[in-house]
Amino acid sequence: MTPETFAPGHFGWAFDAGVATVTLDRAALKNPLTFESYAELRDLFRALVYADSVKAVVIRGAGGNFCSGGDVHEIIGPLTGMAMPELLAFTRMTGDLVKAIRACPQPVIAAIDGVCVGAGAIIAMASDLRIATPRAKTAFLFTRVGLAGCDMGACAILPRLIGQGRASELLFTGRVMTAEEGERWGFHNRLVAPEALDEEALATARALAAGPTFAHGMTKTQLNIEWAVSIETAIEMEAQAQAICMQTQDFRRAFDAFAAKRTPIFEGN
Amino acid sequence: MTPETFAPGHFGWAFDAGVATVTLDRAALKNPLTFESYAELRDLFRALVYADSVKAVVIRGAGGNFCSGGDVHEIIGPLTGMAMPELLAFTRMTGDLVKAIRACPQPVIAAIDGVCVGAGAIIAMASDLRIATPRAKTAFLFTRVGLAGCDMGACAILPRLIGQGRASELLFTGRVMTAEEGERWGFHNRLVAPEALDEEALATARALAAGPTFAHGMTKTQLNIEWAVSIETAIEMEAQAQAICMQTQDFRRAFDAFAAKRTPIFEGN
Amino acid sequence: MTPETFAPGHFGWAFDAGVATVTLDRAALKNPLTFESYAELRDLFRALVYADSVKAVVIRGAGGNFCSGGDVHEIIGPLTGMAMPELLAFTRMTGDLVKAIRACPQPVIAAIDGVCVGAGAIIAMASDLRIATPRAKTAFLFTRVGLAGCDMGACAILPRLIGQGRASELLFTGRVMTAEEGERWGFHNRLVAPEALDEEALATARALAAGPTFAHGMTKTQLNIEWAVSIETAIEMEAQAQAICMQTQDFRRAFDAFAAKRTPIFEGN
Repeated sequence: MTPETFAPGHFGWAFDAGVATVTLDRAALKNPLTFESYAELRDLFRALVYADSVKAVVIRGAGGNFCSGGDVHEIIGPLTGMAMPELLAFTRMTGDLVKAIRACPQPVIAAIDGVCVGAGAIIAMASDLRIATPRAKTAFLFTRVGLAGCDMGACAILPRLIGQGRASELLFTGRVMTAEEGERWGFHNRLVAPEALDEEALATARALAAGPTFAHGMTKTQLNIEWAVSIETAIEMEAQAQAICMQTQDFRRAFDAFAAKRTPIFEGN
Repeated sequence: MTPETFAPGHFGWAFDAGVATVTLDRAALKNPLTFESYAELRDLFRALVYADSVKAVVIRGAGGNFCSGGDVHEIIGPLTGMAMPELLAFTRMTGDLVKAIRACPQPVIAAIDGVCVGAGAIIAMASDLRIATPRAKTAFLFTRVGLAGCDMGACAILPRLIGQGRASELLFTGRVMTAEEGERWGFHNRLVAPEALDEEALATARALAAGPTFAHGMTKTQLNIEWAVSIETAIEMEAQAQAICMQTQDFRRAFDAFAAKRTPIFEGN
Repeated sequence: MTPETFAPGHFGWAFDAGVATVTLDRAALKNPLTFESYAELRDLFRALVYADSVKAVVIRGAGGNFCSGGDVHEIIGPLTGMAMPELLAFTRMTGDLVKAIRACPQPVIAAIDGVCVGAGAIIAMASDLRIATPRAKTAFLFTRVGLAGCDMGACAILPRLIGQGRASELLFTGRVMTAEEGERWGFHNRLVAPEALDEEALATARALAAGPTFAHGMTKTQLNIEWAVSIETAIEMEAQAQAICMQTQDFRRAFDAFAAKRTPIFEGN
């Protein structure tokens, strides 16, 4: 994909100075997802693996809400009439979106205002950083529609963010996690005023995009693949990964800048 | 087991509207466990796998305390005289209680007041949700009796609830975790006044029992079995688990209720 | 190694009443590490496995700072000129220090004041307990020198201490975690005034050294090796580990003391 000319059909897109912004933009309905937007998001995040000029990603919602999850009429209704092969194809497609968000090398920053529920809460969870406003309301409400909390990796990922006990409560009850709880529990990295949200998320993304982005990609890879390995294995994995980063020019640039008492200018290689 | 007629010999039992209540009831001694009560609790939680009419479980203590752990005279004394095969049989039996609490499909809610120590702290830890009072005092005090903190899964489970550093301190020192710390660290889901504890725990259990209980059982299973798998594996596991839940009638009931602007009535199938 | 006569060349050492104190002591430079001090620390922690008289370890920095990480001129400069085999030998050596801190049976208590960055933050992270002052500033600043956050196990260990989302932010941005954040997030076990830090750390170490130290070593082993196993596996591992501890004399000593209404005197066997 070419970030300068990418023109998605089911969400908004902007690209500037290495930062891509994805906007879920069905604001009248609080930005629900459809079969088509799921698939297009999955394809985008998969393509980002090869989009070298994209250094960081912001994902946000239009109109004061993040995302209301799977559209009741466009997704939940049809699902109630499907046979198992189609159902599994659907749950695998939604899971593939989370896999793709985790697998792209760019840090993904969710900018969360208002409603952030169902698949919207999952997209926030799958991101690397979460900046929210005090009015963000996050709910893993699958249980409210008769389903289990185990959706798109939630039973594995949410406990690592907020702890097993708090995750159990949210997944069993489907209740709202307030913004204050989210910050206190480690889901949100910080809270900012609604009018400051977009700029904060962009500024964070720009700062990461100006960093050693090859190394950032390695950080993200290791955060993913060390999820369930022994301490000893993780340490050996990091010895190899960091040795690779020590052969980048960015490492030399940082040292040269330090020696010259300059701020380093990283180039991501 | 038949919940309506079940009459345990070593703890109290009540059953109403899908909710079973287990009461540790040797109040004069702050509800210690004995070889017999361990075994009977283990057998109960194992039997709950097949007790379809039980939808949620509350576990509580009588007389303002949760549980004082293994009885010093009835358990610790005899253990000091045992040979290794008997010791291992005992530690496996106590571990089997935790395995059984985790393996039953019902959400288990610990209602914690006062003393919650040793095996009592472990039972609380092994539950799905923990509601406590401000006077709850939780201690993994195995080190105080000359033993290690690795008892019944504590070195694996406690770090996932409250973080590795806090768990290390509690397990190395055996010190009390106050109720306030427990809430702040993610052990307790919330604190309520002592006089409200039983009703809060029951109300939470009733709300879960009125939900899509087949799906709740799947949530619990996934929270258990995704403990130590890769992110990619967890996502595929959830794709399969959630696809199964999408073929339940509860999923259709929720959609039908939504379309008719009604509150869904779930039946657990 | 003989703790009474050990005379390291690259850090300070004291030994009293079962407690060893390691002092990073290049205070003028905020206690940076060199190739030599890395190697000597690694060798020390490896030797502690066999140093039965050492029951707990405090690690601290001289002059109001903990550790400024790898020395820019003595480590980072030379690294920029190395070929891959030498780079990997270096990252494996630093990783071996973390492995050795985790593998020794003694609880390791980091006493953290002032600057705690880079490899210094890693040594704090690798310790069992962390006591800090309000002026402690901890940063995993590898990204600032063009490297990845995956250094010496940070992508595996830091998320288990403070949660995946907070760890992601610290590792991607390299920003300072304040002492207050560190306590709130579970990195620091507690904060104490700078003038009380050394005594607090020593008192904690002395208390652990006076406990059932064979069992403490088992607690530490299990905290390490249950990192990435299933719940069921962890419970069986603990059944075996605790059964071993039940055959120690310290277990009997605790029971005998309880029966005699005395405080037990543990001997670590």
